[in-house]
Parts: sequence; C-alpha cells; structure tokens
Amino acid sequence: MLRLGVDVGGTFIKAGVVDDSYTILHKVSVPTGGDAGYLAIVQNIAHVAQLAAQEGGFDIKELASVGIGIPGLLNPKTGLVVLAPNLGGWRNVPFLEEIQKLLPVPVRVGNDANCAVVGETLAGAARGCENVVMLTLGTGVGGGIITDGRLFVGGQGMGAELGHMALQMDGATCGCGIKGCIEAYCSVTALVKQTQCAMEADPNSAMHEYAQKAGLVDGRTAFECSKLGDRAAMTVVENYCRYLSNAIGSLVTAFRPDVVLIGGGLSNQREYLMDKLNALLPRYVFASDIIGVPPILRATLGNDAGTIGAAFLDRV
Amino acid sequence: MLRLGVDVGGTFIKAGVVDDSYTILHKVSVPTGGDAGYLAIVQNIAHVAQLAAQEGGFDIKELASVGIGIPGLLNPKTGLVVLAPNLGGWRNVPFLEEIQKLLPVPVRVGNDANCAVVGETLAGAARGCENVVMLTLGTGVGGGIITDGRLFVGGQGMGAELGHMALQMDGATCGCGIKGCIEAYCSVTALVKQTQCAMEADPNSAMHEYAQKAGLVDGRTAFECSKLGDRAAMTVVENYCRYLSNAIGSLVTAFRPDVVLIGGGLSNQREYLMDKLNALLPRYVFASDIIGVPPILRATLGNDAGTIGAAFLDRV
Repeated sequence: MLRLGVDVGGTFIKAGVVDDSYTILHKVSVPTGGDAGYLAIVQNIAHVAQLAAQEGGFDIKELASVGIGIPGLLNPKTGLVVLAPNLGGWRNVPFLEEIQKLLPVPVRVGNDANCAVVGETLAGAARGCENVVMLTLGTGVGGGIITDGRLFVGGQGMGAELGHMALQMDGATCGCGIKGCIEAYCSVTALVKQTQCAMEADPNSAMHEYAQKAGLVDGRTAFECSKLGDRAAMTVVENYCRYLSNAIGSLVTAFRPDVVLIGGGLSNQREYLMDKLNALLPRYVFASDIIGVPPILRATLGNDAGTIGAAFLDRV
Repeated sequence: MLRLGVDVGGTFIKAGVVDDSYTILHKVSVPTGGDAGYLAIVQNIAHVAQLAAQEGGFDIKELASVGIGIPGLLNPKTGLVVLAPNLGGWRNVPFLEEIQKLLPVPVRVGNDANCAVVGETLAGAARGCENVVMLTLGTGVGGGIITDGRLFVGGQGMGAELGHMALQMDGATCGCGIKGCIEAYCSVTALVKQTQCAMEADPNSAMHEYAQKAGLVDGRTAFECSKLGDRAAMTVVENYCRYLSNAIGSLVTAFRPDVVLIGGGLSNQREYLMDKLNALLPRYVFASDIIGVPPILRATLGNDAGTIGAAFLDRV
C-alpha cells in the first residue's frame, strides 16, 4: 500500500508518495514559509502532502498513512514539538494533533535526522543493517540511531541528539549554548568558522582567492584548496577529520553499529574526508584492536532519505 | 522461583540466591584468584555458585537459572568474553560455553556494569523507571543503560561502554589508550591523579597531612580536605564535579533517562558531590531550559546490585 512521506526543512517542505519497495513515485517541493508563523506552516505542510498525492494521480484518502519529519526536538508518541528553531522558533506546539485534523489518513511524526537513518536503513547505504549510526553534517549535526533493528529515540523520544554530545569540555560554544558539543566542531557551520579562522591567520593561503571567486567561504573552501596543496587548508581539513573521527569513535563505543553513515554534501569528499575518517577511526574506538571498527560510508539517498524514512517510521 | 546471581570482580567473586522479590536469601564471597589463569577462575566461579546454593540450604538443580556478571567486554548472546583485563587478561574466551558445562541450570552472562543497572532498576534507586543511565565510579567508569524498559547493550552486545566515550579531545590518556575518555577524568583513579597533581603544586595543602594519616591518597582525600576549607582540595573537587556533570549531561542528551544513578563509594559524598552534580547538570544538557533534566541519585543497592541484576538479566 502506498504511503506519503514529508520532509519539513527550514527552507523547503518536500513530500513524496512512496511504494512498499521504497520507491518515490512522485514528489513535490514547496517553500516552507518559515516567517508565516506556526499555524500557517502546519497548513502548508498539509497542503504539500495533498499536492504530492494529487499531482501524482493518487487520492490521499487511499494512502495508508502520512509520515512527517520535523527538524526539531519532539515526542513522537504525543506529537508535541518541544523545539524547532529552523521553523521560526516553534516551542511546545501540539503539532501532531493539529496536522492530523487537516489530513484524512493516520499521521506519524519523527525527528528529521531520525527519518533519514530510517530511510537509509530501509533502502539506502545501511540496508539490512541491524545497528546503524548516522550523522548528517549541515548547519548543525543531526543524529540518528538504529539499534537491534529498531529506531532508538531515548526517553520521551527526545534522545539521540548526537550533535549535542560532548567532544571538548569547555571548548567552542555551540549554537545550543553548551560548550564543546560535537556540532560545534563537526557541523559545516563549524568547518566554515575553522576555515575563516585559518584564512585570517594566513593572508597568503590559496583559500582567499578560492573564496573570492566562489563569492563565499563554505564547506568546500578548505577541502578544494587542500587538494591544491595549500598548507593552511590542509591543516583545516586534517583537524576537521580528527574532530569528526573522534566524535564518531565515541558513538561507536556507545552503540557498536555495523556501519556509520555520513549524510550531507561534505560526504562527497571521498578520499579527502571519508577515507581519512576510516583511517583515523580505530584510534578513537574502545577495544578497536580486538573487535575492529565499522566502516564509515556515505549515505546514498540524499534528500530522499528523509521522505522515505518519514513514510516508513513504523517499520523499524 | 529462586535464581542465582554471581558478580565476578577482579578481587572477589560474590554469589547470592535471589528470590522473585529481589531479596538475597543467602550470599557468599570468595577471592577471585586472578593469577590462577582463565580455566581456574571459571572453575572457581562455578564453585562459588554451588557454594552459595549449598550454604543457603538450596539444591542448585532446583534454581531457575544462574546469571553471571563479568567485568569486561562480552557478547551476552554468544557468551564470548572479548576482553577482561581485571581477570588476568582474558581475551576472546568462550566463557558461557565453558561455565555452562559446570553448572546444572541455564546460565546467562552480562557485563558487570549492565548487571548493576538492571539490579538498581528492578530493586533499587531506579525502581519503576523506563529509562536509566548509571555510572559506577571506581578504578574505571562502568556504564549501564536502560532504555524503554530494556537493557541497552548495542551491537554485538558490546556497546554502552560509557566510560570510553569522548569528554576531552586530545585530553588525558585513558587506561584504554584513547585520549580524553570520560574514564580518564571521572574515575576514582582519575580523581586520585588530579588530587596528587594538586598536592604537588601546593606543598601547604591540608591534603598532605590528611594523606599521610590515611596512609594513602584516595578518592576521599580531596573531598574531606575540601570540607576543611582547603583551597587546593576545593579546586580539585570543583573540577571533578565539572568533568562528571559534563559527562552526565552528554549522556542525558543522548539517552534522556528518567534518572541518572551514580554507583561506587564516591556517591556517599552527598552535598559535596551529588548536590553539586545536580546543580551543574542543566548547563550541560541540550534544551534543558525547555525539557528539564533528570535527577542524579545515589545507587542504593551497593554490591548487591550486580548480584541481583545478574540473576534477573532476562527481566529487562
């Protein structure tokens, strides 16, 4: 039976009709309209869901369910969204209750990073794995965990906020206000800060010219310039890989996944990021010399992971 | 029906006959004999189990099962103990297979820290809780997690090694070889090192006299002298509480427990440790201002937690 998956982001709401073999039959994408306020966004989400079904030639009433991934802290059982900064600052809103009124089939909700790991485990790079840790590197660091074949959400469904676990006591201040979170070192935002800092320290770095041509400093700046042999860029990349592999090592020690997935555009840096992470990982995993370490792989579904995972939140 | 729980430590093997209401009816304790080699310890464990039953007036054949907690990394399903440094260095030994040959009832095995959290959740400070994080502070830092009412062990049953998660990148070297583990800052061993370091830096600290009277520097030295107003001791305690509350905050962010338990002798330092940890915790927990933080409580069963938990490993 067909299902509908909706991936709500800060910029776009994406929705897709997904079949039982995890193929997206039709998808649509509409601006989130984050400035319009909570109820307007709720209506927009319902609209996008209806639109995906309608445009695809389906009657939404005949779909099995709608699953919605939300970029925020929420209780998947009650559907209360406690915090969603990227949706204009939702706080303690009864999202499931309200969206359910607008849709004619059963609705489920989940955290967006949790939807992504569900999607990748059902249909992507972790297909068939019973234990998975996934980090999505972007503005923040999203975390999702499959343990013993099931989605791990923690108490009240609000755990697995892996990006806000400790990496460096009293270290860099994270967007959440805590010092030294994984996110404060491993997000693309953090990488950009690390790049800017290195550029300030070295006026001769090739990163200046690269950034000027590109019109901005972004997650590519240090990686691309490190490929040209720029020393300052190489140091940025080296440190970033060290931070991230240390964070992954800590998570492997806790969860012992069969595989670690990296999502987000940075994961396209194969030999410059993924290969280095795999090489560094044993150094940061407890008893790695005896029981080994899992491979760190690139997530393969991209944006579709969230849509597919949202549609099948109850399958893990 | 009665069960037998065995808690294997580096120094003593403790065994108890436990009834269905988690009361230990009879218990015995025998030196582990760690120098005698793997097979001798296996025989000793079987002997202690038999002894507990016999001395208590029970026929071991009439007990429902024997559960055994082992201080090491093991797969509870296969019973393979991958690593147990405190038992004379076991590596990849088929412990369950061998001990089962020596005992006439079904045997289960688990990690000792996991047994402790099971015991505390069934019968101790976390009774009735569905989500629990427990840290046992001793030579190392043992970790146990109950999530959604079940013992969390991670892939291959070898996760939840909370003491070896990251707290400080490139920080103090842990006994496991990794730098900056929680254990390297929060174990009693680490506290003793921090105390010794502060004593070296301050020859006038009251800790020198205290340690001389006690005959050693231990986990009490800094705490007791901080109560006397000794500045150096107060700083040691303050830093230690900061390390530990940061580590706990990181675990709360990941697991969102209803309660955090601290086991080990240090937890007797109520206002000097437990109260401080509770006061500091919100600072280190993601979104604590919105969803609050769990209480940090002292484990109440002491050594019996491991025995009771081992006996009832299948109940969570």
